[in-house]
Amino acid sequence: MPEFFPQGFRHLAVTAGIKKSGLDLGLIVSDRPATAAAVFTKNAFPAAPVLVSRQNLLDSGHVLRAVLVNAGNANACNGEEGLAVARTCAAQLAGRLGCSPAEVFIASTGVIGRPLPAEKICGALPGLISASCDIAEFSRAIMTTDTFPKIASSESGGVRIMGFAKGSGMIHPNMATMLSFIITDAKIDFPILDKALRHAVDRSFHSITVDGDTSTNDTVVVLANGASGITPNPEAFTAELMDVCQRLAKAIARDGEGASKFVELTVEGAPSDEAAREIARCVARSPLVKTAIYGSDPNWGRLVCAVGNSGVALANDQIEIYIDNVSMIHGDLDAAQRRMREKEIKLRIVLHSGAGMATVWTCDFTEGYIRINADYTS
Amino acid sequence: MPEFFPQGFRHLAVTAGIKKSGLDLGLIVSDRPATAAAVFTKNAFPAAPVLVSRQNLLDSGHVLRAVLVNAGNANACNGEEGLAVARTCAAQLAGRLGCSPAEVFIASTGVIGRPLPAEKICGALPGLISASCDIAEFSRAIMTTDTFPKIASSESGGVRIMGFAKGSGMIHPNMATMLSFIITDAKIDFPILDKALRHAVDRSFHSITVDGDTSTNDTVVVLANGASGITPNPEAFTAELMDVCQRLAKAIARDGEGASKFVELTVEGAPSDEAAREIARCVARSPLVKTAIYGSDPNWGRLVCAVGNSGVALANDQIEIYIDNVSMIHGDLDAAQRRMREKEIKLRIVLHSGAGMATVWTCDFTEGYIRINADYTS
Repeated sequence: MPEFFPQGFRHLAVTAGIKKSGLDLGLIVSDRPATAAAVFTKNAFPAAPVLVSRQNLLDSGHVLRAVLVNAGNANACNGEEGLAVARTCAAQLAGRLGCSPAEVFIASTGVIGRPLPAEKICGALPGLISASCDIAEFSRAIMTTDTFPKIASSESGGVRIMGFAKGSGMIHPNMATMLSFIITDAKIDFPILDKALRHAVDRSFHSITVDGDTSTNDTVVVLANGASGITPNPEAFTAELMDVCQRLAKAIARDGEGASKFVELTVEGAPSDEAAREIARCVARSPLVKTAIYGSDPNWGRLVCAVGNSGVALANDQIEIYIDNVSMIHGDLDAAQRRMREKEIKLRIVLHSGAGMATVWTCDFTEGYIRINADYTS
Repeated sequence: MPEFFPQGFRHLAVTAGIKKSGLDLGLIVSDRPATAAAVFTKNAFPAAPVLVSRQNLLDSGHVLRAVLVNAGNANACNGEEGLAVARTCAAQLAGRLGCSPAEVFIASTGVIGRPLPAEKICGALPGLISASCDIAEFSRAIMTTDTFPKIASSESGGVRIMGFAKGSGMIHPNMATMLSFIITDAKIDFPILDKALRHAVDRSFHSITVDGDTSTNDTVVVLANGASGITPNPEAFTAELMDVCQRLAKAIARDGEGASKFVELTVEGAPSDEAAREIARCVARSPLVKTAIYGSDPNWGRLVCAVGNSGVALANDQIEIYIDNVSMIHGDLDAAQRRMREKEIKLRIVLHSGAGMATVWTCDFTEGYIRINADYTS
């Protein structure tokens, strides 16, 4: 797909020595103040960068000039010291950019509970600011266990949107160990931008699951700097933003730790869209469903079980399950099994309790997931 | 441990040909009407035996003469036909025992969505009723992927309690793919028996998790036939019943599919006991926590993350985590890792938001779980 670069942004990356090797410090700078909206983790123990960035957005009136992100260390569970480190990094960068510290957004990803050395980040800032501009390098700098960088962009009516994401493990609504940075040159007010982001995130990052865990650091932030001079129609802008977010979210599910298959799961006929999403998430996170998919086993009983475990009250027990257009329940199991062997699987669960519908994306559960996660910090 | 056989019960088992091989049909008969209480799955798609047994208990006024259980086929998602099969089996057995069909309790475990052949079960009934009595054979007849039979018993003040369970995969509150049959010769009224069972189940079968999935067939039933002639003190009886249930529940967690380690997890300082149990369950079901335990990785950040994902509101973010008595957060990680390598692990999470406390039991998550579940029906 072609890439569309929003005007007035620079992407920078350097090696700051936080990870054992490779790029680990990224920066997005807007050449003018940008309207910004963000969605953060709902975890009860949000990391220091989440707390600092949330406060910065309030203090700056939702205006940002820069996003600073490191990989290799989550700066989570580090108490007051962690907050001080995040604030120091933001202040130092603000000084170099000539903006307010509140106009700097901080994000971190990596191991929890290890002190993040502020001096490494601050020491790398001069080199970072003068680094050459390369979105591929930026997107590599935010990776942890990701196996490929995740970038999506679109252009509509002269307005460009580009998004970056990192994911891999601990992915579940809401947005576990997931960071996404989205930039646009649209000229747009905060209330509309905020509403558009929440709509898009619900139907993208909140609709994927890898292992059902959510992290202390999840963050999605969008910066709209108005450099195009164009104020888009809100509905059209929301649709474009959702498309970019969905492409990033699907890339995250596809790159789930150890994943060998990508699954699109749609639930229809639920009491409401929200109920459909709840059921779909419950099925998509079931280890028994995910291992059956890995084993190409058309064991639809596990899908029924998972639907029944969602806690959603259904009007009756009628249920149909399709893989592509093949009925799985008392259907042609040979044809179903052939489709289960594909690398991309489309499952559809049809209930008879209303008009609610939702789609989620997930991956299978393999020995690779166990191996990756049984030996991560050590 | 010595085994205590309640008076007035017989245990029988035969091979009915429902599984590919081995014992697969078990029967418990009381020589007199027994007061009975049961707890069933909360899955929205309860299996036919669950629906039939729940109705039978109501119809008989909570009196049972027999429990008939098959392995190899769950008789779930089989619609009206499944209900008819369960009712036929109960009626045929009742005819042979000379009791009302409502006094027969039916349970099934195995693959979902395959017709259960009534003729195989009914054909095996004559042999079953005249089989030789052996509790070891009975407990093997109810196994699916279990690797060892689960029996626990106790005696107190002349009253005996004995319980049987099968578990292995799909184990999570509430009681996934878990069957337990408990017999006692106590003389006890239904309201007291029912209350005692619910109390015991909350603190045992509802406090274990293997993979977070729950099944269509989960059932715990207790039969009290009064053959001892002794009416126990309700509190003492409840404590004995809880002890038997906890020993069975721990055996199930220990025998989780592919498990290499057994974990006891206690949460203290939560807003309430119920909140503590919710937090403990959330931690115990986290794939990232369970893979870290498998890898002997003292990655306490994953435990903090899982606590934060429970949805329980905490008064502050103070948290301590201990393995045995070694502090994991900013503590001696070498000592913590040595303890992580043990086969039996005791974790304690201390919050500062109240006096609520709960203990749950779980196992680690290994490649073995993936292998077992990627290839189950086929």
